[in-house]
Amino acid sequence: MLSQNQVKHITALGIKKYREEYLQFIAEGHKLVTELINSDFTVAGIYASAEWLVANLPMIRQKNIPVFETLPREMERISALATASPVLAVVDIPGLTPAPPGVNPATGLILALDDIRDPGNLGTIIRIADWFGIGTVLCSESCVDQYNPKVVQATMGSIARVRVTRCSLPETLSTLDGYPVYGAFLEGESIYDQPLTGQGVIVIGNESRGISQELEPFISRKISIPSYGNSLSGKAESLNASVATAIICAEFRRKGINN
Amino acid sequence: MLSQNQVKHITALGIKKYREEYLQFIAEGHKLVTELINSDFTVAGIYASAEWLVANLPMIRQKNIPVFETLPREMERISALATASPVLAVVDIPGLTPAPPGVNPATGLILALDDIRDPGNLGTIIRIADWFGIGTVLCSESCVDQYNPKVVQATMGSIARVRVTRCSLPETLSTLDGYPVYGAFLEGESIYDQPLTGQGVIVIGNESRGISQELEPFISRKISIPSYGNSLSGKAESLNASVATAIICAEFRRKGINN
Repeated sequence: MLSQNQVKHITALGIKKYREEYLQFIAEGHKLVTELINSDFTVAGIYASAEWLVANLPMIRQKNIPVFETLPREMERISALATASPVLAVVDIPGLTPAPPGVNPATGLILALDDIRDPGNLGTIIRIADWFGIGTVLCSESCVDQYNPKVVQATMGSIARVRVTRCSLPETLSTLDGYPVYGAFLEGESIYDQPLTGQGVIVIGNESRGISQELEPFISRKISIPSYGNSLSGKAESLNASVATAIICAEFRRKGINN
Repeated sequence: MLSQNQVKHITALGIKKYREEYLQFIAEGHKLVTELINSDFTVAGIYASAEWLVANLPMIRQKNIPVFETLPREMERISALATASPVLAVVDIPGLTPAPPGVNPATGLILALDDIRDPGNLGTIIRIADWFGIGTVLCSESCVDQYNPKVVQATMGSIARVRVTRCSLPETLSTLDGYPVYGAFLEGESIYDQPLTGQGVIVIGNESRGISQELEPFISRKISIPSYGNSLSGKAESLNASVATAIICAEFRRKGINN
């Protein structure tokens, strides 16, 4: 049986204010929880069904994580999902750590997100970064919180591997003098006509307003995804932010592999 | 003032059973509603604020659409969105019409979706098809209903232009003998090593299980998006279904443009 205080603490972590107060977030489901357990994150507690605990005991013991057997009706109370899964982890939000290899634009690609508001988009972008081996995602301070439960779930475990950092983008980009900063615009040069390399920063703008004006001075190349619409019937005006990110990252990697 | 019956009718259209009974669906927001008004769809009624009606009167008059001035508190009752917009349209579900140009794999690309369950994914895929000039999306009968309000909203208006047809995929694919049928797999040949053309069918599978076994015999080429993970830290196991669709469609179009 969980105590009232435990239930209150865990459900509070659905709210940003309390995540910032307790410096913890929640993650649910077998895949996501096991990836976090086996990552650099510190898992503060596991709330799970008896079956899950029995099946995963060696892993939990090895990591010395406090576990709490949780009944299905208790899982329903603490879960942020429509349908609770058999396991929920409370995870510590890491403090600022020295930049790992890959943060430096001299040695790789960085994604910089300007005011991404939709939790599903941010989570999906973190998953895309992971797929394409981009180790660092910079988020403007106006982006949705990366520890929002919907973001964490949408990463499908990639949050355990991709370093997501909130910062002032103008400040950070101003320190990257000499590296290419690519900005995704509806009106830019085709990504297929650009000499994209494996170095630099890719800036992705807000879902409806695109890249903010204050960032434009830092953009060295405006890039675009060509559309292929039938001019008779009109066409989509834009692509979803995470979809655009995926196409751009794929093209950077294709050029890197094939050229 | 809307009548109780109007409110009941509109809210019922959030449920598949009633959409199939009334052969109508709802769409909300200025952009989506105006794109539907200016499309081949028949808009059966517009429910909007006085301001919206005044601003858009010429368009509505021209199309002879019944309009109902709706108070904000009434909009909240009929809306399927978290925050109601100033306009909601009730739209007739079209009957089967002769296939428009582009349905034939001899003259273009077709997307075939096998068991896509997430409404956001289906809506985003319809938007991607529109961007890349793919006029036809075939959905297996197990896919989420394309007239589900969440799907309609996620298309951002592209549902007005892309023909979405539910059918038995094995039956339909078996009639397309002689055309390439590409299937997206985690283990396939790299899309970058394939002679992709502007003709054929691209099959996208379920979010967690991929392409079903019963479709495999119809697939002539298994294709894959190369990942670029850091082998030390592991990597994402897969990409979201709509993200994978976007990268594949972009590569088909790139090859078509540049080769």
